[in-house]
Amino acid sequence: MANGSSAKWDTFQGKEERNAASGITVRSVLDEIMENLNPSDQRVVVPLGHGDPSAFPCFRTTDVAEDAIVHAVRSAKFNCYAPPVGIEPARRSIAEHLSCDLPYKLSPDDVYLTAGANHAIEVLITALARPGANILAPRPGYPLYEARAAFSNLEVRHFDLISEKGWEVDLDSVEALANDKTIAMVIINPGNPCGNILTFNHMKKIAETARKLGILVIADEVYDHLAFGSNPFVPMGVFGSITPVLTLGSISKRWIVPGWRLGWIVTADPSGILQKSWIVESLKSYLKITADPTTFVQGALPQIIKETTEDFFLKITNMLREAADMCYDGLKEIHCITCPHKPEGSMSTMVKLNLSFLEDISDDMDFCIKLAKEESVIVLPGFAVGLKNWLRITFAVEPSMLEDALGRIKTFYLRHAKKQ
Amino acid sequence: MANGSSAKWDTFQGKEERNAASGITVRSVLDEIMENLNPSDQRVVVPLGHGDPSAFPCFRTTDVAEDAIVHAVRSAKFNCYAPPVGIEPARRSIAEHLSCDLPYKLSPDDVYLTAGANHAIEVLITALARPGANILAPRPGYPLYEARAAFSNLEVRHFDLISEKGWEVDLDSVEALANDKTIAMVIINPGNPCGNILTFNHMKKIAETARKLGILVIADEVYDHLAFGSNPFVPMGVFGSITPVLTLGSISKRWIVPGWRLGWIVTADPSGILQKSWIVESLKSYLKITADPTTFVQGALPQIIKETTEDFFLKITNMLREAADMCYDGLKEIHCITCPHKPEGSMSTMVKLNLSFLEDISDDMDFCIKLAKEESVIVLPGFAVGLKNWLRITFAVEPSMLEDALGRIKTFYLRHAKKQ
Repeated sequence: MANGSSAKWDTFQGKEERNAASGITVRSVLDEIMENLNPSDQRVVVPLGHGDPSAFPCFRTTDVAEDAIVHAVRSAKFNCYAPPVGIEPARRSIAEHLSCDLPYKLSPDDVYLTAGANHAIEVLITALARPGANILAPRPGYPLYEARAAFSNLEVRHFDLISEKGWEVDLDSVEALANDKTIAMVIINPGNPCGNILTFNHMKKIAETARKLGILVIADEVYDHLAFGSNPFVPMGVFGSITPVLTLGSISKRWIVPGWRLGWIVTADPSGILQKSWIVESLKSYLKITADPTTFVQGALPQIIKETTEDFFLKITNMLREAADMCYDGLKEIHCITCPHKPEGSMSTMVKLNLSFLEDISDDMDFCIKLAKEESVIVLPGFAVGLKNWLRITFAVEPSMLEDALGRIKTFYLRHAKKQ
Repeated sequence: MANGSSAKWDTFQGKEERNAASGITVRSVLDEIMENLNPSDQRVVVPLGHGDPSAFPCFRTTDVAEDAIVHAVRSAKFNCYAPPVGIEPARRSIAEHLSCDLPYKLSPDDVYLTAGANHAIEVLITALARPGANILAPRPGYPLYEARAAFSNLEVRHFDLISEKGWEVDLDSVEALANDKTIAMVIINPGNPCGNILTFNHMKKIAETARKLGILVIADEVYDHLAFGSNPFVPMGVFGSITPVLTLGSISKRWIVPGWRLGWIVTADPSGILQKSWIVESLKSYLKITADPTTFVQGALPQIIKETTEDFFLKITNMLREAADMCYDGLKEIHCITCPHKPEGSMSTMVKLNLSFLEDISDDMDFCIKLAKEESVIVLPGFAVGLKNWLRITFAVEPSMLEDALGRIKTFYLRHAKKQ
């Protein structure tokens, strides 16, 4: 047994469906691409692959948030275990915070804290999974839904977002996909990966379609309030009286602190249907046996929410608007890339790769690997979010780096452009 | 659908095995008991039910640890997402820290960070679960193993800990339980719930038994170094060359910061067998789709480990020794309770309830509910940790509260004692 070969534990098969299922995540695809970086390239690597600008000084979070953490740690009141649903003051502050944008009041009991929004997806998908059941999710979308659903043997059916209509939901495809085993549909707004903001009227139609189909809406609002175009951000909970809504959120994006790992699931239905349902029971049950967010981050939350001023939020949305404009304008000059819809929210945009303009690029992954190798620029291939031969480009980086990166992508394009 | 009754999503059955499986956790049993507290009792509630003394001033963590968190937050270097396995400096500091007690050096690649040790159990059990496989776990033990295994359809078979032999493992029952589908056995040392410390020789025998059976050892060392009797704490990794060891740990207990949610899984085998196995592959795969510990807590870890002085650890173990002695002595006067082994580690002890001495107490849960109601003292019924009609008593509270609680338990006993 010295080499483990005769050990019983080692005779089990290692690979199985679950491992494969968790294979596609934004992280794992980006890791694979980054392995191709050229270490002898002296230029800085520009990460346009993921929505985390926290490393850039201009996107540093507000002092208020840091102060709140320091205050919570120094108080020594939050070194303890927290209840599985989270501590009451934090739940109350989120309920009050989100209620500002709703036509009804959320209660602290509507709020369940999680270790970030990714963990909220884990908890919710696990709580919803039932033998034979399915959920509907957008294409393009966020691959953790697929990974967690595959892990839980929950079927995912994909409806399209229509690029020509500002990435609106194709409601006909939603109706065609739903059957009597459909529990819910996922809506990500502000859009990730598309950078769009859904209109009030379209969201109402989504809620009405869900009601007609007898399904819930899972509203992924991780990028809530990061809207900088003509459409204002409207939370899906506004339509909670049409069909019950489960809202997912986090402080990660709006406060630029994804590493703080605090998110939430909220039951947004003024009739309180969800509170009495098997879903909340199942959710509470799973929360007892899964990870918790750090207690002192929970403890800091009321102060973070209360004391952060509009200045900070405005500064962030203004920077994102400028970056989105720069990105949109810069991409126009790169003929192998088409951006069908100017980004107006979140931190990324979805662009089409026109392979016929390129000489020696076989697909989106090939594009991203060669771009990393030759230009030290990282972008996410569209297949990772469900659209093969598209790209997801994150514009939330320092403006000078974005400008530099757009120049490098153009150079890369010219080098690989098909000769006329 | 106004009341949700015609909604398709609501027609799915809510209760299923998974919910039932996650029903028994220390938290859920304690919550149920605490519902019976008498709000008109003016006395302070004494929580002897769970291992979290962080709320008591005398058990406050060291300034060094708080300073490290403040420093990490103020640096703004750790607001970002972390890699799924954790950031390298934190992994390195744990590898070096644990290597001090091992006859070989761990590498940072042996260390996987988790959101606390409970999350480490979640990750490890999920990674190990295979159709038809089983693991062996101690009785009494820690119920999260059972809850997570049930959730993952991994069978758990129970071996006994022998109270008459200082809660040593019944190695005959281990051999009788193992079959060709057994992957691993769980050893919790320092003992939770029993408060015992395994000897070097017994641990070596455990490793040899595991080797003979061709199984791994999962070493739950959440209470590592909290040893205050005659046996010193020896990490199971010392025997990693006999059979590969997966060690679980955390800063929760030794630094009295369970709410900080930082734990780890470590591959402790000098031959590096685990590193090349399906287990590490499966573990890394699951880490990509589950929660992460807060990045700045990871960032603070090197400083916490490096700067905490022996004084602090000594103060904590001395307090625990005094509390354990007080508890052991106090329980001697309560004739319905027998403590078979003086606690010498961790924060709790396991005591037998002699129901024949009691008039109107039907079982351990009944004892705990009535004790909460009448005396505002919380203890954990043994069934929650696998031993019906025993109690797990946590002694890690302020000494004056412990003394008070022991007095109240005695009063409770005298009130309910069977009349001769």
